[in-house]
Amino acid sequence: MERRTQVRGGWRGDMCNARFVGTELCAPSRGTLHPRATPVTSPFALLQEILVGKYGEGSKLIYELQDQGGELLALRYDLTVPFARYLAMNKITNIKRYHIAKVYRRDNPAMTRGRYREFYQCDFDIAGQFDPMIPDAECLKIVHEILSDLQLGDFVIKVNDRRILDGMFAVCGVPDSKFRTICSSVDKLDKMPWEEVRSEMVGEKGLSPEAADRIGEYVQLHGGLDLIERLLQDPKLSQNKLAKEGLGDMKLLFEYLTLFGITGKISFDLSLARGLDYYTGVIFEAVLLQQDNEHGEEPVGVGSVAGGGRYDGLVGMFDPKGRKVPCVGVSIGIERIFSILEQRLEASEEKVRTTETQVLVASAQKKLLEERLKLISELWDAGIKAEMLYKKNPKLLNQLQYCEDTGIPLVAIVGEQELKDGVVKLRIVATREEVNVRRESLVEEIRIRTSQC
Amino acid sequence: MERRTQVRGGWRGDMCNARFVGTELCAPSRGTLHPRATPVTSPFALLQEILVGKYGEGSKLIYELQDQGGELLALRYDLTVPFARYLAMNKITNIKRYHIAKVYRRDNPAMTRGRYREFYQCDFDIAGQFDPMIPDAECLKIVHEILSDLQLGDFVIKVNDRRILDGMFAVCGVPDSKFRTICSSVDKLDKMPWEEVRSEMVGEKGLSPEAADRIGEYVQLHGGLDLIERLLQDPKLSQNKLAKEGLGDMKLLFEYLTLFGITGKISFDLSLARGLDYYTGVIFEAVLLQQDNEHGEEPVGVGSVAGGGRYDGLVGMFDPKGRKVPCVGVSIGIERIFSILEQRLEASEEKVRTTETQVLVASAQKKLLEERLKLISELWDAGIKAEMLYKKNPKLLNQLQYCEDTGIPLVAIVGEQELKDGVVKLRIVATREEVNVRRESLVEEIRIRTSQC
Repeated sequence: MERRTQVRGGWRGDMCNARFVGTELCAPSRGTLHPRATPVTSPFALLQEILVGKYGEGSKLIYELQDQGGELLALRYDLTVPFARYLAMNKITNIKRYHIAKVYRRDNPAMTRGRYREFYQCDFDIAGQFDPMIPDAECLKIVHEILSDLQLGDFVIKVNDRRILDGMFAVCGVPDSKFRTICSSVDKLDKMPWEEVRSEMVGEKGLSPEAADRIGEYVQLHGGLDLIERLLQDPKLSQNKLAKEGLGDMKLLFEYLTLFGITGKISFDLSLARGLDYYTGVIFEAVLLQQDNEHGEEPVGVGSVAGGGRYDGLVGMFDPKGRKVPCVGVSIGIERIFSILEQRLEASEEKVRTTETQVLVASAQKKLLEERLKLISELWDAGIKAEMLYKKNPKLLNQLQYCEDTGIPLVAIVGEQELKDGVVKLRIVATREEVNVRRESLVEEIRIRTSQC
Repeated sequence: MERRTQVRGGWRGDMCNARFVGTELCAPSRGTLHPRATPVTSPFALLQEILVGKYGEGSKLIYELQDQGGELLALRYDLTVPFARYLAMNKITNIKRYHIAKVYRRDNPAMTRGRYREFYQCDFDIAGQFDPMIPDAECLKIVHEILSDLQLGDFVIKVNDRRILDGMFAVCGVPDSKFRTICSSVDKLDKMPWEEVRSEMVGEKGLSPEAADRIGEYVQLHGGLDLIERLLQDPKLSQNKLAKEGLGDMKLLFEYLTLFGITGKISFDLSLARGLDYYTGVIFEAVLLQQDNEHGEEPVGVGSVAGGGRYDGLVGMFDPKGRKVPCVGVSIGIERIFSILEQRLEASEEKVRTTETQVLVASAQKKLLEERLKLISELWDAGIKAEMLYKKNPKLLNQLQYCEDTGIPLVAIVGEQELKDGVVKLRIVATREEVNVRRESLVEEIRIRTSQC
């Protein structure tokens, strides 16, 4: 029984030894999607030898992860690039969409932090030519809503803009050609101290120490509208066209976020850079704040749980005529969120109901399999979530124990006397109370009693 | 707008030109899962060049479908083999599960029939040592339930048993070593006439003409309990241990299916063979029956929409000690079912609502963007599915037109007078009726009005 709660497919470890922990696309406490079965996923790819000799003549259709001739393919790395390509191919200039699906990275998985080679992403994107920062603000509102509703603890959504970063690099004396690589150094500031990032910039990437130091002054800044106003007055930044545009939009964004009532969790943070190349404007990242645990130690944190930004150039890269469709989107790290929810659930030792089954159809005596089948069929046809043990003559005790183990709240017991009387004995598992219910009222009775649960 | 209903990801065509038609994991008429956006999927794999140069330093994690060293991998071909492996790896001896996920076949897609290289399967399996035919009967009940509920038209579920087939082959004089290959010839009987299948058996597979003719007599038989009884008396079959076991279980299965009240759609059919190697007992396949169309022509049929059977040996193949876990399962061909539903929808010219949005937040005059943002935020926080146009000063006519196009039933209009009076003007799109609603009652009013839709 225990394992029924551990069913998320994760393609983990170097040996592709697909072990499963967690639940499929639903938080552990949310139960299953189908009344009569547990959802289980399996890894999308397996060692080739596992699939050999299982399918008969169909085997020739097995898709191997090696060159079988034909196009050179690669697995989806995120949901953003395929979405941009989809817009270009279908000439869509205006859409709001979400997509929950798996992406693939040739990485070394870190399971405790919810990082795998194959994992779900949950993306939300708004594409189209609109007035500035309105869709951007909605993306942030949605991240705020999701993280609040899931009660993941305190969080902050860091916000920055690629134009502000590029403007900052320019006024600090970074050569144009080094913008992206210096940007990716700045991106490491959430994991490394400034001194290390500085020495990477200067030592590895050949930036002048003066430029690095000027960057160092900016990237330690974070705040809200006040900081934006201050930077709009900054003698150097205010002279840079890109930075000024970025700061103007950032101000607008904060005004909209104020109307949404969420600025309390938003931090304009000049150290936020985001690793991906395709962002062109606003970027953001939601980070869970460490909870103080009882020992005062640093708990293993999961860090970033959502990120995104504006990518106005990506669709144009796939359009034969280079037509641009401005886009802004967010990706929710649902695997990481699940791993936090799971850890919390384990810590709380809360008992999770592993089934949505409303009633077990049981029998008190032998030779009643046919009667159980007839009754369960009636219940299924009426839309009741019912189960029975797949035994000809199960012991009543085993049937009741099964309900205790899985959390099924009701037992509908057929016995010879009940059949004669035209009733079914309904047992409430929690209280052990038993009532005789007329057969024609059983469905209604089960509905009433389970709607209270 | 039109394209919003065409969003299922299908990886179609030899050039991997992923065009999208249909909806994601929900029948076209079911609407979207998220109130504020359309679900869109993308192909799991893309031409490698598409992904190149989009991710910056992350690019080294892109998973290519060529040998990059390491394990030789292959893409999931179905959901059954990975499930069996999962049971063995995790030593699970007892589980009932469902799984909806994509599988991959290196095939030539036939889009009009809902056949793709990448497609969803929807599997339901029961694993464990149970009394005979009880879980098997439940699988058939579920197939019957799904096909009935989806109102796909008339259907028949063909049932047979690998043991009956093997027994039949034995008594017809097929050498043991030819059982599987002759079985796969029999499997073609739904697409080829007997004469062609016979010549394949004799010509290509070297079966004696006498054996083939004996098989020919059996495989044309189909019926119900009466046929089972007759074959149990068959002088040759009744002498074969395997056939006798299979027929005994088939009789039991039909008794259970009678209790479930579904034998009207079940046909015991000796020509049903199923192509896959791993089946060991009962096998079944649901076939939609052709509807007579007005021209009396044969419409393009989609044929089989579900199939499955018992595979008692598969888990043991993955267990280091060969421990077996008996399993029975069914796979629903949801892509084919969607293609039927889509065709029907197109034919009916029924207008499909492309959004679940309950209300559009609109403004009657200029300079009310802030008021719209404030109101939409209130509605979102109250759980109302609300949208607004991402324009600073949209024209009222455009806002109303958007509702007409997408089927949003209500418009909440803020204007200067309404703001002064503390009301919002609620417009019912269908009737063009407008009522002033006090701002504090707006959420309740929207709930009442949309619950009637």
